[in-house]
Amino acid sequence: MSIAPYTDLSRLCIHTITTKPWDIETAARRYAAAGVKGITVWRDALEGRDIRQTGNMLRNEGLSIVSLCRGGFFPATDKNKRKLAIDDNRKAIEEAAALGTSLIVLVCGADPAQNLEDSRKQIQEGIETVLPEAAATGVKLAIEPLHPMYADTRSAINTLAQANDMAEAIHSPWVGVAVDVYHLWWDPALEQEIKRCGENDHLFAFHVCDWKSPTTDMLLDRGLMGEGCIPVRQICSWVEATGFTGFNEVEIFSTQYWKEDQPVFLEKIIKAYKEHT
Amino acid sequence: MSIAPYTDLSRLCIHTITTKPWDIETAARRYAAAGVKGITVWRDALEGRDIRQTGNMLRNEGLSIVSLCRGGFFPATDKNKRKLAIDDNRKAIEEAAALGTSLIVLVCGADPAQNLEDSRKQIQEGIETVLPEAAATGVKLAIEPLHPMYADTRSAINTLAQANDMAEAIHSPWVGVAVDVYHLWWDPALEQEIKRCGENDHLFAFHVCDWKSPTTDMLLDRGLMGEGCIPVRQICSWVEATGFTGFNEVEIFSTQYWKEDQPVFLEKIIKAYKEHT
Repeated sequence: MSIAPYTDLSRLCIHTITTKPWDIETAARRYAAAGVKGITVWRDALEGRDIRQTGNMLRNEGLSIVSLCRGGFFPATDKNKRKLAIDDNRKAIEEAAALGTSLIVLVCGADPAQNLEDSRKQIQEGIETVLPEAAATGVKLAIEPLHPMYADTRSAINTLAQANDMAEAIHSPWVGVAVDVYHLWWDPALEQEIKRCGENDHLFAFHVCDWKSPTTDMLLDRGLMGEGCIPVRQICSWVEATGFTGFNEVEIFSTQYWKEDQPVFLEKIIKAYKEHT
Repeated sequence: MSIAPYTDLSRLCIHTITTKPWDIETAARRYAAAGVKGITVWRDALEGRDIRQTGNMLRNEGLSIVSLCRGGFFPATDKNKRKLAIDDNRKAIEEAAALGTSLIVLVCGADPAQNLEDSRKQIQEGIETVLPEAAATGVKLAIEPLHPMYADTRSAINTLAQANDMAEAIHSPWVGVAVDVYHLWWDPALEQEIKRCGENDHLFAFHVCDWKSPTTDMLLDRGLMGEGCIPVRQICSWVEATGFTGFNEVEIFSTQYWKEDQPVFLEKIIKAYKEHT
């Protein structure tokens, strides 16, 4: 199995939040000019815009719209809040269809006022509730397992095994999994669970970045590939081995990088992508 | 299986670091006066003291010396650093024997410059290297699995399954496991792995605290039992079900609580212990 780095940018996708200081028009223009071929759109980047026109703008720049981030946050002890979450996920599905992307990433949610098992039941119920709309619009849903340090409020699904379990349980062509090295790198079962995910045809998305030592913020201190301790290239090779030919999506939340000159940061992303993924 | 809270303090132990502003003499006097029966000693609390005399002082206060924190930090890409770690662990074993405790908790370590598998091999080698000294002095070693958010530098052992695996592989009456709810609460395999740990006679220590939402610092923002989202009492019941009759050790690192009036904080600890463990 090859673990050579990527020599071109044909499978490089960048998340709009990675270059948060740029509006989506600037991001699209800059990504395209740099040879980046894919974009994942965070919903905040669409605020105040006609979503259909924005989708056309992205395609006119030559960008594939890889996914919309994010749906999810299904669990709540309060029934009304669960209803609001369903409404919001239906809205996200409409937005994805209008934008012209066939994938939504789900940050599934958790409510610290209840146990994780109950949150997981509500996640599964939530996904199943919006499945008809997903199928009707041709939008797939990717369950993203989140690092256990987010188990209190962001996701009760914290390992790839759990995400695989849930995707298997739901058993729909519209539901799969998003693998993010930041959340999963520490897991001793990662290689085998990536294999399982691929065999199930559930590997819908792959996100890369790195874990810095020290990490100074639990949310907003992600590193560029090669800057930390994650064996990014090794994990890429496991993903490749499944036959995955989708985009490698750079998703970095970093107050440090957001403060930098964004064109310089974009160059760093591309360099890191070529050298470390 | 009973999940009633503890009605007395006969199995309450407090870690010296929990009340860090107190020196060990003050901590011992205050714990004992409050009816606390156990103390776990962090090595920094022994600095500048005669360790044997300090052990006598603690016993004279009526306290059981539950364990010494901490040994470990075995992995390093640099061979000389690994040798220094072995030396330090031998020193910790001598200190434990001098203090008169029969247990050392191991924060096993990780080196972000190498992969987790290599770090784990070096952990096992390190423990096996110091085993003769542990056996000769009658000091047991408890592998403490740490939360995956510490996998970069603090421990390459991040689940109870991994700690159980390693204790089984080493297969010595001197090596077992320390279970800490803060590190393990999110793990869907926790109940079964606690059972396995008990059946192996490897459940050497049990630490409690809580996970606050939000948590503002990855290391120093632990909560009192009942203050967060960890099902502390439920996990206690799983530990009880193994036949464990050791101490429930309150280990809280918190810049917030360290700023408080420590006698008031001690009252809060006892109240939280009675109501939530």
